[in-house]
Amino acid sequence: MNKVEVCFSPPLFDLFAKKESIVVVVDVFRATSAMVTAFQHGAKSFIPVSTIKEAKELSEQGFLAGGERNGEVVKGFEFGNSPFSYMNDNIRGRDIALTTTNGTRAINIAAKGVDTVLIGSFLNLQALADYLKTQERDVIIFCAGWKDRFNMEDSLFAGALTMLLLTSGKFESECDSANASSLVYRTARKNLKRFLANCSHRKRLGHLNLEKDVEYCLQTDTTDVIPVLKDGRLVLLK
Amino acid sequence: MNKVEVCFSPPLFDLFAKKESIVVVVDVFRATSAMVTAFQHGAKSFIPVSTIKEAKELSEQGFLAGGERNGEVVKGFEFGNSPFSYMNDNIRGRDIALTTTNGTRAINIAAKGVDTVLIGSFLNLQALADYLKTQERDVIIFCAGWKDRFNMEDSLFAGALTMLLLTSGKFESECDSANASSLVYRTARKNLKRFLANCSHRKRLGHLNLEKDVEYCLQTDTTDVIPVLKDGRLVLLK
Repeated sequence: MNKVEVCFSPPLFDLFAKKESIVVVVDVFRATSAMVTAFQHGAKSFIPVSTIKEAKELSEQGFLAGGERNGEVVKGFEFGNSPFSYMNDNIRGRDIALTTTNGTRAINIAAKGVDTVLIGSFLNLQALADYLKTQERDVIIFCAGWKDRFNMEDSLFAGALTMLLLTSGKFESECDSANASSLVYRTARKNLKRFLANCSHRKRLGHLNLEKDVEYCLQTDTTDVIPVLKDGRLVLLK
Repeated sequence: MNKVEVCFSPPLFDLFAKKESIVVVVDVFRATSAMVTAFQHGAKSFIPVSTIKEAKELSEQGFLAGGERNGEVVKGFEFGNSPFSYMNDNIRGRDIALTTTNGTRAINIAAKGVDTVLIGSFLNLQALADYLKTQERDVIIFCAGWKDRFNMEDSLFAGALTMLLLTSGKFESECDSANASSLVYRTARKNLKRFLANCSHRKRLGHLNLEKDVEYCLQTDTTDVIPVLKDGRLVLLK
């Protein structure tokens, strides 16, 4: 029996990291939803970078470059982390450098602690679960959170994926965070959007007029692409 | 309107700490439940210390000394953190030095960040809520967790206290952790013991044959004592 665990926030990741585990990083609003969407639309790779400076340098080397801070596109960048900006033929076959407030940072933290890092979102939820069930390895679902705080939307994803893994009979959980997430997801799943209406980050995005992005990111199972980190780049696993 | 927030784990406390807030530290199994019980039985003060060495030194100065690590009484100490060990006339009027795996550490972290630190448990839940409603200050409920991990029982207490504060109409929450905790508590409250049967720390205590302690710590509103930290010592607020 393999274990599934949920890490609610980047400062806690060291408590979970085991080299041989598979980590699924999630930042529902919106970095990992945007990455999944970009691969679905033909992107070749993503380099997650921590600083705006690094993204700019890669842009000068021919990368497409995206930058987001506090929910908004960084001045001078073509992309932020709106999934809609990646539904675009211009990204086909391209390498993209991206820096975001929470998501890319969590990916880089995960990369230091474990061998296998996958990218999760509601959009590729079932595909991820199906893949993980074949791997016979422990799974850590790593919520990017908001500036190191617990957030509701990433925990809901964690709960959804935990449930799918536990019901497969191939996983068990002794992790209170995984169990609490599943419980919250069971309450919320009938209407994720309404459930999230009062949540902190949802409100933050509301102020930025990102209703369309929110609805998009809360769709379940629209694609089976799974991005995986190889040598510091996210590429398509399948 | 004052805010209520919930911090799930000691490494996250800096994100919440504001000097002027009131912090309620909770370690349901069992440090804060034991402290509340000790005051109910006449203890004069507690000094929460981080190391076994400090507790021993204070013991040589005439303090009663308690020490717990990984759920068990430290060798050479009279007390661990079983509430039953404090239901004892010998503690009346005495000063007690205590070091535990999670609870005393959280108290000391809180003391560095804010002016007012109170001690919470299910045993004094309503008394705490009644007091906080009169204070017109923001409240941070600080879960001691288990070795820096989120744990279910402290989060349930956080949810219970959050609910009492929100329903008073004097508090609001924009904190996803507070909202998730309340939701989990609403599901669990009919039978906390059964709900916690599968939780990680509950299992840990089960192995140590601490059934009686668990049942005791999950009782609600058995006392109205509220311990408060003054100059590094916990004393009775009321």
